[in-house]
Amino acid sequence: MGRFGDPNRPAVVALGGGHGLAASLSALRLMTDRITAVVTVADDGGSSGRLRDEMDVLPPGDLRMALSALCDDSEWGRTWRDLLQHRFSTDGPLDRHSVGNLLIVALWELLGDTVEGLDLVGRLLGARGRVLPMASVPLRIEADVRTADGTREVVRGQTQVALTPHRIEQLRLRPADPPACPEAVAAIRDADWVVLGPGSWYSSVLPHLLVPELRGALVTTTARVVVTLNLTPDDETAGMRAVDHLEVLRAHAPELRIHAVVADPASVEDVGELAELCSATGARLLVRQVRRGGRSAVHDPLRLAAALRDVVEGYLGDVGTPTGR
Amino acid sequence: MGRFGDPNRPAVVALGGGHGLAASLSALRLMTDRITAVVTVADDGGSSGRLRDEMDVLPPGDLRMALSALCDDSEWGRTWRDLLQHRFSTDGPLDRHSVGNLLIVALWELLGDTVEGLDLVGRLLGARGRVLPMASVPLRIEADVRTADGTREVVRGQTQVALTPHRIEQLRLRPADPPACPEAVAAIRDADWVVLGPGSWYSSVLPHLLVPELRGALVTTTARVVVTLNLTPDDETAGMRAVDHLEVLRAHAPELRIHAVVADPASVEDVGELAELCSATGARLLVRQVRRGGRSAVHDPLRLAAALRDVVEGYLGDVGTPTGR
Repeated sequence: MGRFGDPNRPAVVALGGGHGLAASLSALRLMTDRITAVVTVADDGGSSGRLRDEMDVLPPGDLRMALSALCDDSEWGRTWRDLLQHRFSTDGPLDRHSVGNLLIVALWELLGDTVEGLDLVGRLLGARGRVLPMASVPLRIEADVRTADGTREVVRGQTQVALTPHRIEQLRLRPADPPACPEAVAAIRDADWVVLGPGSWYSSVLPHLLVPELRGALVTTTARVVVTLNLTPDDETAGMRAVDHLEVLRAHAPELRIHAVVADPASVEDVGELAELCSATGARLLVRQVRRGGRSAVHDPLRLAAALRDVVEGYLGDVGTPTGR
Repeated sequence: MGRFGDPNRPAVVALGGGHGLAASLSALRLMTDRITAVVTVADDGGSSGRLRDEMDVLPPGDLRMALSALCDDSEWGRTWRDLLQHRFSTDGPLDRHSVGNLLIVALWELLGDTVEGLDLVGRLLGARGRVLPMASVPLRIEADVRTADGTREVVRGQTQVALTPHRIEQLRLRPADPPACPEAVAAIRDADWVVLGPGSWYSSVLPHLLVPELRGALVTTTARVVVTLNLTPDDETAGMRAVDHLEVLRAHAPELRIHAVVADPASVEDVGELAELCSATGARLLVRQVRRGGRSAVHDPLRLAAALRDVVEGYLGDVGTPTGR
């Protein structure tokens, strides 16, 4: 099983959710087989939201996407991945339900154990790593936002937070002190590297820092922390620059030490300013093309893998002189 | 793969549906690994009926049960079997849906091929054989029944036919001339033995004889045909004796040659009469305990396997003197 992997390769924990985490995992799988994904469980929309409402379970969608990203690159692995990712298209109640979501919640019902169910889907896919939930209970996200006219409002639910056009000032979880998944805490403690981002910054990346046990593990682990910045802003981060993303991380978890930052040059407005911030906080900066061709908003697994490998191996020759492209 | 199996063991095709077919397969797997199940696709009730209505697909339930009965006897095989057999229990639209049914119809959507989808589930389970649908299109069953006061009525749908308290006089399929599954026709042509029953006689066993290509294969194959009689009557066969079951088969397919009949002594009212009918039609009769202990209405896979093996190997020492118990 890839779950334990080659001890000569780095043990990496990737934190996030949704497409951003899947992009991170698609890259990481090219450089190591010791991968643990720790996934947000606050989704309240789509197939996951409906399952959560109907069955009071963890929202499975982001977990499913992470597992799919780690599937074995064989006909078997790809076929089952495609099935997990398949959505029904009907005129009835199954419409838009993801097959993988149904499979995962069914395994949870059958086995009565979240991690065991995810591990079994991982075995089905021949996954090159393990996928764990951020918390053992479903979460709700809440954000204090400031509207254009200066009013402060509360936005509730991951879907609404992700879509808010207002500036987010503070993020909270409900419950505020959810139990972390013990295996996720242990993975962070035992990792060589922890990767934060890319992903929806407020609704997928930051929530991990709000789970007390995860935050505790992140600030005490001997693992080094690398942040992969996003390629483009989305609704919840409209108007935020690269440095703002790092500042938000620092604001929500001041005691978190960031060791390295990976950014795409076309997504950094002011490289000098970013380099300065990194330098001031002790983080090394690697600016490289990590997107697909042209102005693509999608991370290239190959280029991102190369950049993360460079970070892990310490080849950061141009720290402070981020001209590489 | 068990699909091709050990050439020294008999190639057996089992026809039927539901729990009866699953009982047959649970026995056959103990005597050969060259098994093909050919399954009714006329179910219109429960999870299958709802999927059929919502997605216009073959009803998957009986196919799922047959696959489950053939699963590999390992932790892996049993776990996935249990998942396929698992039903959601919610207050919402997923309630009572079978996970395996959802998985099978999703594979059909994804792969666009019924047989390929079933073969893939078979591989997942490590199934000791292959499961095929009786026809390539969903079917409806209709029955002409005679009520207690002598009126003739038409009962429509497998669920209604299975529950009818009236005497069934004639069974029809809609469409009347459905395309058979070509792989099922080929399996019957190439088999050493064909097993009919046990199962709901009108709604699961007889329908195969009404699909023209299947019927053609059954009457022209060099395979020998064994009929396993039911242990107890159900609604649709209330009042019918063992001999009546055989007569009904003959009435619906007069040209079908039956080579052997397996019956449990406790389920045969008049063994002499049954022996006489078998003898008159050229069928050998094996009367043995094939049920679980006592008055159980459930076939014992071990005893039924022993009986079917005796039939296949020709050990029918007591044909005509059915005293064995």
